[in-house]
Amino acid sequence: MNPPLNIAIAGLGTVGASTVRLIQSHGPLLAARAGREISIAAVSARDRERDRGIDLARIDWEDDALALATRPGIDAVVELIGGADGPAKELVEASLGAGRHVVTANKALIAHHGTALAKLAEDKGVSLRYEAAVAGGIPIVKALREGLAANAVERVYGILNGTCNYILTTMRETGREFDDVLAEAQALGYAEADPGFDIDGVDTAHKLAILTALAFGCEIDFDAVHIEGIRSVTADDIRFAEELGYRIKLLGIAQKTEDGIRQRVHPSLVAHGAPIASVEDVFNAVVAEGDFVETTLYEGRGAGGGPTASAVVADIMDVARDDGVATFAIPADQLSPSRPAPLEHRVGAFYICMTVRDEPGVMADITAVFRDERISLESMLQRGRSPGEPVPVVLITHETEEAAMIRALARIAGLETMTAPPRMIRIETL
Amino acid sequence: MNPPLNIAIAGLGTVGASTVRLIQSHGPLLAARAGREISIAAVSARDRERDRGIDLARIDWEDDALALATRPGIDAVVELIGGADGPAKELVEASLGAGRHVVTANKALIAHHGTALAKLAEDKGVSLRYEAAVAGGIPIVKALREGLAANAVERVYGILNGTCNYILTTMRETGREFDDVLAEAQALGYAEADPGFDIDGVDTAHKLAILTALAFGCEIDFDAVHIEGIRSVTADDIRFAEELGYRIKLLGIAQKTEDGIRQRVHPSLVAHGAPIASVEDVFNAVVAEGDFVETTLYEGRGAGGGPTASAVVADIMDVARDDGVATFAIPADQLSPSRPAPLEHRVGAFYICMTVRDEPGVMADITAVFRDERISLESMLQRGRSPGEPVPVVLITHETEEAAMIRALARIAGLETMTAPPRMIRIETL
Repeated sequence: MNPPLNIAIAGLGTVGASTVRLIQSHGPLLAARAGREISIAAVSARDRERDRGIDLARIDWEDDALALATRPGIDAVVELIGGADGPAKELVEASLGAGRHVVTANKALIAHHGTALAKLAEDKGVSLRYEAAVAGGIPIVKALREGLAANAVERVYGILNGTCNYILTTMRETGREFDDVLAEAQALGYAEADPGFDIDGVDTAHKLAILTALAFGCEIDFDAVHIEGIRSVTADDIRFAEELGYRIKLLGIAQKTEDGIRQRVHPSLVAHGAPIASVEDVFNAVVAEGDFVETTLYEGRGAGGGPTASAVVADIMDVARDDGVATFAIPADQLSPSRPAPLEHRVGAFYICMTVRDEPGVMADITAVFRDERISLESMLQRGRSPGEPVPVVLITHETEEAAMIRALARIAGLETMTAPPRMIRIETL
Repeated sequence: MNPPLNIAIAGLGTVGASTVRLIQSHGPLLAARAGREISIAAVSARDRERDRGIDLARIDWEDDALALATRPGIDAVVELIGGADGPAKELVEASLGAGRHVVTANKALIAHHGTALAKLAEDKGVSLRYEAAVAGGIPIVKALREGLAANAVERVYGILNGTCNYILTTMRETGREFDDVLAEAQALGYAEADPGFDIDGVDTAHKLAILTALAFGCEIDFDAVHIEGIRSVTADDIRFAEELGYRIKLLGIAQKTEDGIRQRVHPSLVAHGAPIASVEDVFNAVVAEGDFVETTLYEGRGAGGGPTASAVVADIMDVARDDGVATFAIPADQLSPSRPAPLEHRVGAFYICMTVRDEPGVMADITAVFRDERISLESMLQRGRSPGEPVPVVLITHETEEAAMIRALARIAGLETMTAPPRMIRIETL
């Protein structure tokens, strides 16, 4: 048997503690599968006294996480601190710089600095692994990097944030409004006290940026991701969408186009029959479409101590076997520069929700705008009548270029009978 | 850049031709991701003249596949001949024996001889890879072997045969009977002229036996798989199941129990809400449940040239990188002996379909049998009335031990009012 892989873990929150628990409870299993023992040599966290329900008695403690990077005898550093910059980045840079492998669950770090860190790792001949950064326990990084490596990927998309999916699922099931469900999710611990990172789509965008680099072999470009969150989705939208045969999901979508790679995060109408439409509650799912494999789907828990630790330790085992795979499937110095495709060129169908005063001629005004922009309509819903009062009107368009839709919405917003700005949600053909 | 990986391909049917096409069309992509060029040095197939739509001009030809095993300059042999024994087995044994890596799509070979072949490969210090043998393009072998390697797997199950899933889906959608749909599937090329291998569950069992070894670290034991196919599933069964909230799927299920590992292939009633229930047509899906990752699902095309070639070439790329992973996740000489758990000990619910003469007292006789076996009933369906004539009666039981159900069915079969043998389908809680 080979000598043990000595690891140091920085950060002992939920994921860090679960990682320690997993390694301690599955020692012989991990050794058999990794070809060598995985030994936790040192840990670091903010509070040494806190009871985490794990036994740290025989593990060295460092008050300063950064010291782990150069601590003698460490083969790999596991970064579970979090945050795109600050101590996490310092630790990862210093560890790679010192020739240690790094395993991290830090999506913000990889999304913002992944290309540079990958170059550093590959210069130093060590591994940088981040399976836990995308979709928690689902081994989607490995699937894209290795399992589907024979394919030219055409599109990759997914439900990448469990909090948003939980909120949208609950809104649909209960008919309640966003604010109400968010407050409940916060009370239950499914959403953070400061939920912006999740519900405004930033977390999904971090994960998408990573998937994009892996799938298309380009440098990570988080700034190229178009990001919309789910705050503006209403109970009415969800109900109308259901009636029209769709479910609303927050999707991250990356697609190869003639213009380059288009990356976007936004609420999307997805037909009931699409496999991803039935992914509910806190579950995540990713669909990868390759030219030979066609469509594949991966579903599981996208967060939580156990699933995330599963991914972290799988990475550690890959490191233990020294599997020779590049950080983003191809060597970092061969990644192509990002070439973002503008969203305005996207061609797709739209769901439009308008609140209009119920009076003669309203529909004529609206449809005239669509006619002028050469946007054809597939269906229209107007529920209830109350002359002179505001009523919701919902339209589904046929496929049109996004630029035309933006012009049409601007004109419709200016119509005198519109009592609130019109809202649109993109319909995705999956 | 490392020297090319020189491969030889034996068998140029649909999968072999697609594999050649993939490698020829994606040369630079594969080289970037594998770290070295993948070069097809030689091929062998039965008919040299046949037009396969691929360019073999610059590839050496061997009339005798077995010659590839010892042909100078070959690093890896790709076996796409098929069959558990005969030329495929000879070639794989000879290739491993000669110190060449082997990649195969041959589920029968691995299911029957996997343990011995893995030992041979590992003795010789080479890789034996078989991603394409299970669920086509879905990288489920890699997921179990590496992505979920940190978990103790508790259960793995799946829809592993596209032909059966297509037939069951079509029966449900059209209300037609099995024989009729099978004939159509044969006409469309979705089912073989000799369909037994698929519809009697043997193909599913091959794949399940492989998943079992991978998931639980035990020697492959195909003979321990309880196998039932789908020939006896009727249009009535499917309709009744739908009415009761279930879909019928042919599942392969392997589960760790106190008695050992239970492996079984049979039609199963699956609740509509289960993710695998919505996997339809020719699609395959596998669910793996680990103690840390919890439930994960993998879905995609389980057959066809493109998806299978995707898996074959992914294996070739792993071989090119020399990733150091054992054949069945742990070294073959550490696989535990098979310890099959008897099916009679399974505890679960059942769907029972009986055809009885519609007369007073029938239900009293039937329910008395269940009472005697301490089997409690959850629901009963009897559609239509025609006094004195045979009518179908459907029961759903609560959970009971399978042995009790077998005794009950034997007694019910003997009731004078029963006009045909009662049939049962297991209900799976997924």
